Amino acid sequence: MKITVVGVGLLGGSLALQAREKGVAKRIIGVDANPENADKALELGIVDEMASLEDAIPLTDLVVLATPVNVISGLLPRVLDALPDGKVVMDLGSTKEIICRSVENHPRRRQYVAAHPIAGTENSGPAAAFSGLFKRKTMILCDQEKSSNAALNLVVSLAQTLEMRLSFMNSVEHDRHLAYVSHLSHISSFALGVTVLEKEKDESTIFDMAGSGFSSTVRLAKSSPDMWAPIFTQNTENISRALDAYIKRLQRFKEVIDGQDEARAREIMHQANEIRRVLQGIDVKMGGL
Amino acid sequence: MKITVVGVGLLGGSLALQAREKGVAKRIIGVDANPENADKALELGIVDEMASLEDAIPLTDLVVLATPVNVISGLLPRVLDALPDGKVVMDLGSTKEIICRSVENHPRRRQYVAAHPIAGTENSGPAAAFSGLFKRKTMILCDQEKSSNAALNLVVSLAQTLEMRLSFMNSVEHDRHLAYVSHLSHISSFALGVTVLEKEKDESTIFDMAGSGFSSTVRLAKSSPDMWAPIFTQNTENISRALDAYIKRLQRFKEVIDGQDEARAREIMHQANEIRRVLQGIDVKMGGL
Repeated sequence: MKITVVGVGLLGGSLALQAREKGVAKRIIGVDANPENADKALELGIVDEMASLEDAIPLTDLVVLATPVNVISGLLPRVLDALPDGKVVMDLGSTKEIICRSVENHPRRRQYVAAHPIAGTENSGPAAAFSGLFKRKTMILCDQEKSSNAALNLVVSLAQTLEMRLSFMNSVEHDRHLAYVSHLSHISSFALGVTVLEKEKDESTIFDMAGSGFSSTVRLAKSSPDMWAPIFTQNTENISRALDAYIKRLQRFKEVIDGQDEARAREIMHQANEIRRVLQGIDVKMGGL
Repeated sequence: MKITVVGVGLLGGSLALQAREKGVAKRIIGVDANPENADKALELGIVDEMASLEDAIPLTDLVVLATPVNVISGLLPRVLDALPDGKVVMDLGSTKEIICRSVENHPRRRQYVAAHPIAGTENSGPAAAFSGLFKRKTMILCDQEKSSNAALNLVVSLAQTLEMRLSFMNSVEHDRHLAYVSHLSHISSFALGVTVLEKEKDESTIFDMAGSGFSSTVRLAKSSPDMWAPIFTQNTENISRALDAYIKRLQRFKEVIDGQDEARAREIMHQANEIRRVLQGIDVKMGGL
C-alpha cells in the first residue's frame, strides 16, 4: 500500500514509522507546509519522499491527514475532490464534529473515515515521532455508517496492524466527551503552568521545591500551541461548558479551604480518589504503560 | 543510631527502610495510632518493633514525625517535653509555619529540626513505602538558625545518607512557595478528577477516550484526604491566594476560548510552554527520573 501522510509531525510521523516497520506501507509520501519538518522527516527516514498534496494524491492508496484540526477541515474537501475511486482518506484530528461537517454533503464522503487515535505526548514535530506511539492505544472511529465498507476495512486493518483497540462513536458525542477527558486537562495544565511561572519568577526556587507531582500535573503545558488553538475553536461550546464546571468546582473547593472545613474537604477528596479505579482501567487498557 | 518513626506510612516507612539499608539505623521503633498500619509495618520489616510514643522517646536518638501535619503540630511540643538532652526530633510535614510556631518558645526548641522532603507518590500507607523514595530529591530545612548545630548536623548527615540535596529556607517563605508548586497542583488535580467523574458517569467511556495525558494531569487526585485536609488548614491563606490566581487565569483563558481568539490563546500557551525549561531543571535535579 502507498500512504501519503499530510503533516509529518508526532502523529503522522509515528504512523508512518509503524506502518513501514509492520510492512503495510511499501512507499510513504510526506506532505508538509513547513520546510524544516520536511527536511527532518526525510533525514529521519520517516518518509521516502516529500511532494505537494496535488502530486501525491494520484499516487496513493491512503491519505492520512495529521495536521492541526483547522488545516484538516480546510484540506479534507479538496482531498476528496481529487481522490480517485477506491482510494481512501482518513484524519487523526482531536475534534470530529466540524471536520465531519466539512464534507457531509460531499459526493465522495464514503471514501473518508473520521478517526482519532487517543495517543500523543507533549512533544511535537517529526523528531518526536516514534514507532510505538499507537501500540495498545484506542483508535476512535466516528460516524462509521457514513464511510464505505471498503474504506472502513482499510482503516480498521491499519489500526489492527498498529496494535490499537477500536472504538466507535458518533462525532458529536466524541467532541462532547473529549472536552472533558482531554481538552479540559490540557487547559488546566496550561493555566497552572502560567500561574506558577508568573508567581515564581526565580526558576531555581521551582527546581528546588517542586517534585514529581508538580511535573506530572503540568506536563501537558508543554503541548503545541499550533495544535491546540484550533482545537479550542473547533470545540468551543463543549470546552466552555467543561471549563465552567471545572471553575465552579475550584471555587467551591476554595470556599471549603477558606472555611477550614476539613470534613467537607475530605469528602471532596474521597470523591476524587474514585479516579484511581478509572486510571487503573486506563493502565490495564494500555498494558500497564 | 536508634530511630523512632511516628507514622509508618509512605514517608516514614520509606525513611525507615532507607536508613536501615544504609546502616545508619541500628534499631527502628514505630509508633502509629492505626493498628492495621502497625501490623503491616512489622510484617514488611519496616520497623523492629511498635511502641507507644512515651515508651519510645527515652530509647531513641532521633524521633521522626511523619504523620499528617495537624498531628505533627499537636505532638511536637509533647515530644520536646519528654526528649532527653542531646536527642533530636525532626518532622517531614508539607507545611512549616504553624508547626514551627507550635514550639517557638519551647525551652528545647534547639533540639528540633524542621524538615520537608520534596518526595512522595500519590499512594499512602506502609505498603506504599520503598527505600528509593528520597534518592536525588530535595530536603528543605527551615529556620535552621533555631536548631542547635548538633541537631542540624544529625539531620543533614541523615539527608546525605538518603542521597538527598539540601536546601535552606525560612518557614514562612516555605509555605508561600509550596502553595504554588505543590498544594495548588494537588487541588487542581482533585477538582479535575471530581469534574470529570461527575460528567462521565460511564467509566468505560473514560477508559476508551482518556489517554496518558489525562492520567498524568489527574494522578494527584489519588492522594490521601487524611494527609491533605490538614495541609489546607495549615496553609489556608497562601493556598487561597494561589487558587485565586489560578481561577482568574482559567476565567481569562475561558474568555479567550469563548471568543475564539486563537492569537491570544497561542500567546498564553507559548507562555505556558516556558514550563518545559523548569521541568527539565526538575528532571536534571532528579537524575532524569
